[in-house]
Amino acid sequence: MRIALWGFGAMGRGIATALIQSDLIKLVGVIDRDPSLSGRDVGEILGIGPYGIRVSDSPEIIRKVNPDLVIIATSSFVREVLPQVEFAVKACSNVITIAEEMVFPFYTYPDESSYLDDLAKRYGVTILGTGVNPGFVLDTLIIALTGVCLKVERIVARRINDLSPFGKTVMESQGVGKTLSEFEKGLRDGKVVGHIGFHQSIGMISRALGWRITRVEEERRPIVSKVYRETPVVKIEPGLVAGCEHLVKAYMGDKCVIEFYHPQQVYPHLEGIETGDYIEIYGDPDIKLAIRPEIPGGKATVAIAVNMIPIVLRAESGLKCMADLPVPRSMLSCWR
Amino acid sequence: MRIALWGFGAMGRGIATALIQSDLIKLVGVIDRDPSLSGRDVGEILGIGPYGIRVSDSPEIIRKVNPDLVIIATSSFVREVLPQVEFAVKACSNVITIAEEMVFPFYTYPDESSYLDDLAKRYGVTILGTGVNPGFVLDTLIIALTGVCLKVERIVARRINDLSPFGKTVMESQGVGKTLSEFEKGLRDGKVVGHIGFHQSIGMISRALGWRITRVEEERRPIVSKVYRETPVVKIEPGLVAGCEHLVKAYMGDKCVIEFYHPQQVYPHLEGIETGDYIEIYGDPDIKLAIRPEIPGGKATVAIAVNMIPIVLRAESGLKCMADLPVPRSMLSCWR
Repeated sequence: MRIALWGFGAMGRGIATALIQSDLIKLVGVIDRDPSLSGRDVGEILGIGPYGIRVSDSPEIIRKVNPDLVIIATSSFVREVLPQVEFAVKACSNVITIAEEMVFPFYTYPDESSYLDDLAKRYGVTILGTGVNPGFVLDTLIIALTGVCLKVERIVARRINDLSPFGKTVMESQGVGKTLSEFEKGLRDGKVVGHIGFHQSIGMISRALGWRITRVEEERRPIVSKVYRETPVVKIEPGLVAGCEHLVKAYMGDKCVIEFYHPQQVYPHLEGIETGDYIEIYGDPDIKLAIRPEIPGGKATVAIAVNMIPIVLRAESGLKCMADLPVPRSMLSCWR
Repeated sequence: MRIALWGFGAMGRGIATALIQSDLIKLVGVIDRDPSLSGRDVGEILGIGPYGIRVSDSPEIIRKVNPDLVIIATSSFVREVLPQVEFAVKACSNVITIAEEMVFPFYTYPDESSYLDDLAKRYGVTILGTGVNPGFVLDTLIIALTGVCLKVERIVARRINDLSPFGKTVMESQGVGKTLSEFEKGLRDGKVVGHIGFHQSIGMISRALGWRITRVEEERRPIVSKVYRETPVVKIEPGLVAGCEHLVKAYMGDKCVIEFYHPQQVYPHLEGIETGDYIEIYGDPDIKLAIRPEIPGGKATVAIAVNMIPIVLRAESGLKCMADLPVPRSMLSCWR
């Protein structure tokens, strides 16, 4: 399987490392617009010695290397990745993207979704958005659990996670490292968005269950750090923002049917906070699930993006979501 | 969707109730060989008033009512359900069966599996074996969780459940209600088999992960009751067997890669035992999941059998397993 990678930030580098370590896959091209990376050997940037592929600043490399699939790890947003997805599809390549908004774009970007679905079918390829969340914890996993329920009345889930493995893009969108007033300003001007994915997870669940959501309420609050925290991309002095506490409630009429609580911050254990994923399904039967510690965001996003490759290559063409495809599985786990 | 049901025991009746309660599905035929049921109205047997369909003692009813899909809930074993599956397929009907051995028959019954796969393809229908376990807890759910792993080295899982909702077939195969010496004799002559499904779950996981299992070790021990326990189908005096503690280990060479512990008994809480499903995946990252109490066996088997109907109707033809199909979901959860 010949794979190209578009985007060589924190997630892209993790994906590249996983691809290079696999015997089943060949990484045949890397694209990044950062001029400081252009022309450099991918393996040398990763610190694993020369690999023989250089970072290209132009997507034209895709037409040259003709990969089976392009993994796009450049942005969280449909409007930003759309031209990239389009370019890859027109080069007859399948696409996996970790853009959060692409995990279930059908309700939030219906026109763009129809366009991409048509385009993918015309070129006979498959497009999938995935990631740990959205993409797994608060949607695919919940949907799978409802499969053993005769009835589902309400879903409540909490993801209490550590944001530290992520790169600058995510830190910016979560307001990490900002002062309180910068955070508030960021919320107002749309630069601090908190978790990107609630609407996608709610969309995927509601379509799977045949629910018609009538209203969604959201709230975002700053998590102010009491201690010094530092990641490779951000430094947080006490009093600055370490993350964003993001809540969402989805209603059918007057009844709240989905409730997600997702406080995201870097190194929560520095203030004694235990991380975990908690899912409660109320129906018949009730199901109460806990994963402790949480499924780690960075690693799991890298893993699921790579693990979905063989499933996407075998899928029917079109724009798909995780709930349309066979259950994910570790394709990298062949134990030697 | 027009569904026929073959087998009107404990599980069959649960499935019939769920089908009758759904607006999306019409139950169009019921078959059971029990002469005391034959000719009686299905709804009256269920205690919900007349439904207008009578239990038939002959599978010929399938050819008459021409269902989209037949649910087979008659036996746990491939050799016993094979002629029934064959009959339904030859009537151009899709099949879902809760026969445990049918959840992943490819390794244990390779010839029968090839035959059924060919037959299903010839008739353009899909055959699926499913259930709570095998079918979900110790296979589909584990496989889905490995999807967020870069590497999986070892899987350890425990299912500590309550067997009381099940019917006579399951009680017999678990040795419930027997004396210790009857239990031991049952083990020797193959009538007490403990959990049916370990080999299927191990098969499904190992195929999904690309593992080659070289050896499987099993152990079965009686769970002797200290207290009186009673279900609609069995009475257990203190000193009699309340269930079977079944362990299995699967190896690749010298390394134990899958370890399942599954003590099954009726009403474990009568002796203060907390039920739950526990999955530990060791790899990169490790994942530790707990579902407390356990996903209840009877209800969840009924639910997943019914919930898979639309997925099976849309699937490509052939003999499939849960890992081949899109993630399950509650099709019965439309909240009104």
